[in-house]
Amino acid sequence: MGKSAVQTFIDNDQEFELVAGVVRDLSNVEDHVKEELLAMGVQLTDNLRDTLQRKQVDVLVELTTAESVYHNSRLALESGIKTVIGATGLSDEEIAELDKISKRHHVGCIIAPNFAIGAILMMQFSQKASKYFGKCEIVEFHHDRKIDAPSGTSVKTAKMIASTNRSINSSNKTNHAATKIESNIPIHSIRLPGFVAHQEVIFGGVGQTLTIRHDSIDRSSFMPGILLATRKVMQTEELIYGLEQII
Amino acid sequence: MGKSAVQTFIDNDQEFELVAGVVRDLSNVEDHVKEELLAMGVQLTDNLRDTLQRKQVDVLVELTTAESVYHNSRLALESGIKTVIGATGLSDEEIAELDKISKRHHVGCIIAPNFAIGAILMMQFSQKASKYFGKCEIVEFHHDRKIDAPSGTSVKTAKMIASTNRSINSSNKTNHAATKIESNIPIHSIRLPGFVAHQEVIFGGVGQTLTIRHDSIDRSSFMPGILLATRKVMQTEELIYGLEQII
Amino acid sequence: MGKSAVQTFIDNDQEFELVAGVVRDLSNVEDHVKEELLAMGVQLTDNLRDTLQRKQVDVLVELTTAESVYHNSRLALESGIKTVIGATGLSDEEIAELDKISKRHHVGCIIAPNFAIGAILMMQFSQKASKYFGKCEIVEFHHDRKIDAPSGTSVKTAKMIASTNRSINSSNKTNHAATKIESNIPIHSIRLPGFVAHQEVIFGGVGQTLTIRHDSIDRSSFMPGILLATRKVMQTEELIYGLEQII
Amino acid sequence: MGKSAVQTFIDNDQEFELVAGVVRDLSNVEDHVKEELLAMGVQLTDNLRDTLQRKQVDVLVELTTAESVYHNSRLALESGIKTVIGATGLSDEEIAELDKISKRHHVGCIIAPNFAIGAILMMQFSQKASKYFGKCEIVEFHHDRKIDAPSGTSVKTAKMIASTNRSINSSNKTNHAATKIESNIPIHSIRLPGFVAHQEVIFGGVGQTLTIRHDSIDRSSFMPGILLATRKVMQTEELIYGLEQII
Repeated sequence: MGKSAVQTFIDNDQEFELVAGVVRDLSNVEDHVKEELLAMGVQLTDNLRDTLQRKQVDVLVELTTAESVYHNSRLALESGIKTVIGATGLSDEEIAELDKISKRHHVGCIIAPNFAIGAILMMQFSQKASKYFGKCEIVEFHHDRKIDAPSGTSVKTAKMIASTNRSINSSNKTNHAATKIESNIPIHSIRLPGFVAHQEVIFGGVGQTLTIRHDSIDRSSFMPGILLATRKVMQTEELIYGLEQII
Repeated sequence: MGKSAVQTFIDNDQEFELVAGVVRDLSNVEDHVKEELLAMGVQLTDNLRDTLQRKQVDVLVELTTAESVYHNSRLALESGIKTVIGATGLSDEEIAELDKISKRHHVGCIIAPNFAIGAILMMQFSQKASKYFGKCEIVEFHHDRKIDAPSGTSVKTAKMIASTNRSINSSNKTNHAATKIESNIPIHSIRLPGFVAHQEVIFGGVGQTLTIRHDSIDRSSFMPGILLATRKVMQTEELIYGLEQII
Repeated sequence: MGKSAVQTFIDNDQEFELVAGVVRDLSNVEDHVKEELLAMGVQLTDNLRDTLQRKQVDVLVELTTAESVYHNSRLALESGIKTVIGATGLSDEEIAELDKISKRHHVGCIIAPNFAIGAILMMQFSQKASKYFGKCEIVEFHHDRKIDAPSGTSVKTAKMIASTNRSINSSNKTNHAATKIESNIPIHSIRLPGFVAHQEVIFGGVGQTLTIRHDSIDRSSFMPGILLATRKVMQTEELIYGLEQII
Repeated sequence: MGKSAVQTFIDNDQEFELVAGVVRDLSNVEDHVKEELLAMGVQLTDNLRDTLQRKQVDVLVELTTAESVYHNSRLALESGIKTVIGATGLSDEEIAELDKISKRHHVGCIIAPNFAIGAILMMQFSQKASKYFGKCEIVEFHHDRKIDAPSGTSVKTAKMIASTNRSINSSNKTNHAATKIESNIPIHSIRLPGFVAHQEVIFGGVGQTLTIRHDSIDRSSFMPGILLATRKVMQTEELIYGLEQII
């Protein structure tokens, strides 16, 4: 993810300038990766504090895991550096604390558990469609190595629909085999090799159906969302949670 | 269409009361249709003026053809009766004239060339998606008795997308066989028996696609749009063009 | 169904000649239907025995319900008249008996519980695909007035796949909410207004999926199957069960 | 492709034993690839002749380009070693020559321009469906870096359908923008980022459609076809052209 992001910022060098790459453990990075990055003009370091002080940094893009994300983000925000956070592992307390720091220092921060713009549009469209259609089901398709079901995105979609139309599917008389989340929205989980991450939200009305489908086959699909958040964080002095707030 | 609408209003009698049904030529209506309507409590007449005067009418739902729609709508609006118009055959001059009458009498009027809520949502979603995806193609599927192509809905969708993202598909290098409307959006028209009226708008980004699909298999799909317009026209004193304005 | 079939044979009058239409109770048929048929040259009767004797009948197309289908088919076969049977309500004993009569009189008979050629092709293709793909799931979409699930077609498809590849899905580790029929093939049942009768059989392999989808929006989709069976029954002197035997 | 194949044979070591890996130019292979292969027990060489003589080789899997494929295959067949050829660049003369050599030495050879089993099943199913449906269109979706259109697979599919049903689409009255190959089968080419290689063959009949779709997102989808050909070549002493001959 980090390496893809580095490549993305370099590819968009008319709008962005990548000033540094920071990893937690330099010895974990293969030599040929280091060389590739160096060839792109980016020297990796493992010292975030030092980097934030010595380089002129506008935005920190934080893509590490739950263990370090809070500490790193706090460090940046307290230094007055805007921060885009991609990790999903922040607790409610940590988010509240980052919010306070953001407010105190008037420093923008965007936390995006999901950078896939297409998936967020699918959720927003589903919310709006649910105002005009009384019935809805979700089908999500993932590779068969994904053991859990239903997917996080499908559950979030169902919750967003239910929050908009509380009576959706209320007239359903049947009770078939499918996971049902809030508001009686069935979620059908398909697990087959050959899929990556796909979801269909199907709305049914008399004589018509409306289907919103998102297909994601590569983590490169997250990059436009990272660019968008980095662009938007420059224009805010507050903490924003969820890419859907800026789409 | 008229008969379906009559049935729809009767089915929704908690919200609406059908006070009269008007046809242009009573002799064109088969006896068993008349009897069915009468059994539903609706006596058909062929005199609109008389009906508007004698019955207490809140809204005229005008579903006739280009020949009579302007005359009928004008008659209703000038009588202070709100009007929902479904016909597509109004000229720009006629629409402008109805607008003036609506303003003069402070009488609401909604003109909806397309009552399919699902199709309008598809267009609106496509507009929004085009802000975040740089590339888009449209595939529309109709029965093989539809001789013209591309479909009116697909052309309107392309125009709405192009009005939102003027540079969509601007980096396209290929020039394949497909109809191209404004802004270089290819429209692929499929004509096969077994289809009724279907459309897919596909947006492509790196590693992901977002697809919005509308399937319409019956003109009953227009009924929720007629109900919505009838509901909304009660709340306006102006002329509104396009169901998309109230969705 | 009967009326559609009558229309179909009349539309194909270069290949077929409709000599009579038989209903169980003439008083159940509306006058305008009788008149329409008469205008097409077909006089309805309620006496099958008399019709089979007096008219020169090559094939009886039996589309009545479980109550009369066995009696009618037996009557025809014993009179040496080839019979195409569409009803699903025949018991195993009745089918065995019709088989005996067919053999004794050397009279062809085709029993087709499903006349939808597209659905049968979907099942046959699924059987063949299951030889080359180790994993498969079925999604079936029906209108929300269909209370039962999974659909008969989906269950039959799963059984046909399982009979071909006994180890399909055997390596599945997950156990999600879905109906599972023989051989661990999940069937996902979607019930929404706007659908009629649709089914997708999805096969997954490393890096690829193969999907076979049948969409049926009208009982007119059964007509080519009735024509095919009527054509084929002329060429056989045996009882054939299932349209898949002649496709 | 070669590296994927090496990995595939190693992963299937209960059925296959990989005895050698041959490349044209060892200096073109990155060191870490060599090390990875060595860790899997495979030492790369650049001398095919020597390898065929010194190792006990049952089957040569030839995945090089047009420049070397003929020479290498000829060398193997003349040495009595069965050969599976994946390259598409063989001329008709070269194929005829390999056929002669195969016959002379009674050595099996399978030439497969397309190893994607799913794509071949799609073509075969389309051929059969075309016997029962009079109308058909093809939609193919590829990434926007693919400049040519229509795709080779879509053209081959159209040809196979046309060879089975010469009158398909013969009653088409419309002439829309789409590439038309033999027998008037329209091919719609969609080029968008986010797609890899996908194709839909849609058959339309009254009241129904039958759709066969193949989605390929990775060249790993070719591996089951390579395994199948390697298995089958052991059972033949002739030259077989096309994976469809053994499916």
